[in-house]
Formats: sequence, structure tokens, C-alpha cells
Amino acid sequence: MTKESERTIAAVEAAFQLLDAFDGAGALRLADLHERTGLTRSRILRLLGTLEVCGYVVASGKGQYVLGPKIFRLGWSMRDAYSPMISVLRPALERAVADSGVTAFFSIPRGDQRVVLAKCEPSSGVRYVVEEGQARALHVGATGRVLLANMEPELVDAALSGGRITALTPATIIDADELRASIDSARAEQFAVSFGEATSTAFAMAAPVLSGSRLVGALSLAGPLEDYEARREVCREILEREARFLGSRIA
Amino acid sequence: MTKESERTIAAVEAAFQLLDAFDGAGALRLADLHERTGLTRSRILRLLGTLEVCGYVVASGKGQYVLGPKIFRLGWSMRDAYSPMISVLRPALERAVADSGVTAFFSIPRGDQRVVLAKCEPSSGVRYVVEEGQARALHVGATGRVLLANMEPELVDAALSGGRITALTPATIIDADELRASIDSARAEQFAVSFGEATSTAFAMAAPVLSGSRLVGALSLAGPLEDYEARREVCREILEREARFLGSRIA
Repeated sequence: MTKESERTIAAVEAAFQLLDAFDGAGALRLADLHERTGLTRSRILRLLGTLEVCGYVVASGKGQYVLGPKIFRLGWSMRDAYSPMISVLRPALERAVADSGVTAFFSIPRGDQRVVLAKCEPSSGVRYVVEEGQARALHVGATGRVLLANMEPELVDAALSGGRITALTPATIIDADELRASIDSARAEQFAVSFGEATSTAFAMAAPVLSGSRLVGALSLAGPLEDYEARREVCREILEREARFLGSRIA
Repeated sequence: MTKESERTIAAVEAAFQLLDAFDGAGALRLADLHERTGLTRSRILRLLGTLEVCGYVVASGKGQYVLGPKIFRLGWSMRDAYSPMISVLRPALERAVADSGVTAFFSIPRGDQRVVLAKCEPSSGVRYVVEEGQARALHVGATGRVLLANMEPELVDAALSGGRITALTPATIIDADELRASIDSARAEQFAVSFGEATSTAFAMAAPVLSGSRLVGALSLAGPLEDYEARREVCREILEREARFLGSRIA
């Protein structure tokens, strides 16, 4: 790679680093962007100019910046693409929460990550909280591994390759052999369970949703670690029932 | 500006041009991206590599690419930020559609554009169709001009400056003096109407939604041009009523 293309790519990466800084942040000042990205202020200002012209960031007055109209547009277009699926998911998630007493969510694979498309949480008590749109690396926890168990071998290799296997908590499995064994077991059982891998204090149980032989996504139940023993049997039954139901409804 | 920074910015612009190409598109092949952006294939491939590493695009198999998990995340976080407002908007939009027989939508300013946050369309017949998340330049049509009429003078100057005033249809007003006069009139009346400026065959009527003296957004009604004369009086009454209602409910 020439020096020029290295510089070019570095600029593109820095621009996306700035965009990432806005995740869940609302309005940010130059100082906030500097703190969140570590980029120099002059570099941030130069990139912001381009991000503004492209409609991905806008100045909101008082020296603050917010995400621009293009993010609205692209985010909405993705939501629209999945909205028929989401409307099928909602009642199944609600039933799963009512019957299990823990949080239920549905995720789809997206590159080497999985994204939460829809969730339903119990209305009170100590509960596992998950955000729609939240992304996690595929190697992490029960949800990622039931997805990997039903994906093409090349995609599994890519997800487990190189420097991509990092830990979110001390309990995240990062040993490649252990991950492969866990994926094999998830494939054999079409079910997986994990403890504290994404959130230290929570268990997760997941089943793949298959339409015929095609992987659609993963249905998961998650709750406080201390609830696991009392709930695991009922949770497993609910997952099997609702995953089968969703597979028959999602084309 | 040095040659180096020009090159850098050009790379960032090209990266966002690629992202823009995915608006409403689903999966795209390299050839589609080339056709939509005019960038060379080698340049697209190099940029896609960086977009993938950053999580903004992912390869979806069969030589196709789709938007990545980061767009989900940012799009969802924006939707979440506005969801309390959207839940207040829905019943007002439904009432406006039931009483007027035409499409109702609510937009917010975002930089030099306005973005549709929520809409409601009549359930049958010939109707104006609008997409949530859709962005338009602020100078275009009744909606943009009731927003500009209630924005700071600097923001109005910016929206009307330089090469930004372009036409969407032959009827789009692009004369600066005419636009200023139209904005002044929208400020005096807190109401505006336009014919065929965003969509050749549709009229639009809009009123600002103000919470105290603070601009929250614009409420609009739009329908086929031939319906205008018969509906304009009832539409104006509905806009005034629902804009006042929304202003009192949105903090």
C-alpha cells in the first residue's frame, strides 16, 4: 500500500471515529469529541467540515454538533426494511417475557456482529436491560454462538479470526478452541447458554430462528445470574416454542 | 489548504458518497456502487475495506454489501431520542388525517435540511406519500419555510447561501428575494402554502409548532394539487388547532 492510500484510509477511519462518538450522546462540543476520540482539535474541525457538507453531522448552535439528516435517513431505511419482521416479533417476545419473567430479545447477524432488532423487558424488578440497535461481536455469549452455529464456515472463520476475539467481561470466552467447541455444541443442540460474557451479572440462553433451513436470527432470554437455576427449564421450553413459532411466521 | 488535506477530505467525501448509495437500496454489488457513485472500482474496493473495518458496511455474501451494525446503532439511538415526541405526534397526525382527508406529517430542522419524524397517510385513494426519515433542503416548500421563519437569522442566511438553493421540481422557488419574501410572509402569518415544489403534483400547507417561543418543528398537510381549493380552509383550521395542541404537549 502506498503512503498516499494509507493517509487516505486513516482520514476515513478518523471520520467514522467521530461519528461513533455520537452514539447515545446527543449534542457534543469540540472538547467532547477530542476527549472521546483522542484526535487533535484541528483535525476534528477539518473532518467536521466534511461531515457537515455530507449531511452526517450538523452544527446545532452554541458550538455543539449533532448527528445529521443522513443518519436519520439511513437509520430509518434500515428500520423500515425490518419493520414487517419486528411486528411479527413483538407478540412472541411479549409472551416469552410473560411466561419466563426475564428479558427476551431477537438479534440478527450483521458482518462479524449481531444486532438487537427488538426486545421486551419485564415491567418491574431486577432485570437484564438491552437496547434495540445494540451490537455485539458474534463470539460473545449464547446469542452470538447460536448464530455462528448456523452460519457458513467462512463467516465463522472470519468472526473468530485474528485480533477480533476480545473480551467484554472477565467471563467472555476468548480461547479459539473453546469457542469452536461451544459453537459445535450449539449446532448439535440448536441451543446455547452463557454466564456473564456480555454483562458480568447476567445469564443468557438462546435458540436460532430458522425459516426452513435458512437462519433468520436468534431468540434470547437473559436475566440476573442468581435466577438461572430456578428458571432454566421453563426458559428453555419457551425458547424452543417461540423460536419454532417465529420460524414458521418469518418468510 | 494543502494538497494533502484536499486529498484527505476527498477520501472522506467518497466514503460518505458510498454510504449514501445504500439509501433505500438493500444489498448492492460493486457494479451497483460504481454506477451509483461514479467512483472507480479500485477506489470503491479500498474504501469498502475501511467502511467494513469501521462497521458501517458489511459484506453479505455473493459479492454484495449492505449497511453495517453502526448505522443500526446510530439510527436507533436517534429514533430513541425522539420517541417520546413521536408518541405525542401520532394521535395528532391521525386526527389531522381523519379530519382533512390528506396526508399529515411532522418535520424538524436539522442543519440546512428538515427531516420527517412522523407521518400519517389516508388509508385509500390518491394521496401524497411521505417517508419518515426523509430529508429536504429548508428552502423547498411550505414546511421548510415555516421552519426558516422561526429560526435565527444566521441559520436562515446559511440555508439560503451560495450554491445551496437548488430546484427539486420546475416549481421550486430558487430566487433568493422571492424566498426571503415567502419566509417573511410565513413569519407574519405563522403559516405557509406551496404548490408542486417538492413533488410536482402536490400542494403542501404548514404551520410551525412552538413550545412557548421555542421552535419544535413543523406540522404539514399535503395532497394532490387538484384537491387544494376544496380542502384549503378545513386544512388551515386543522393545522392551527393541531399545531397549538402539539406546542402545549411537547416540552
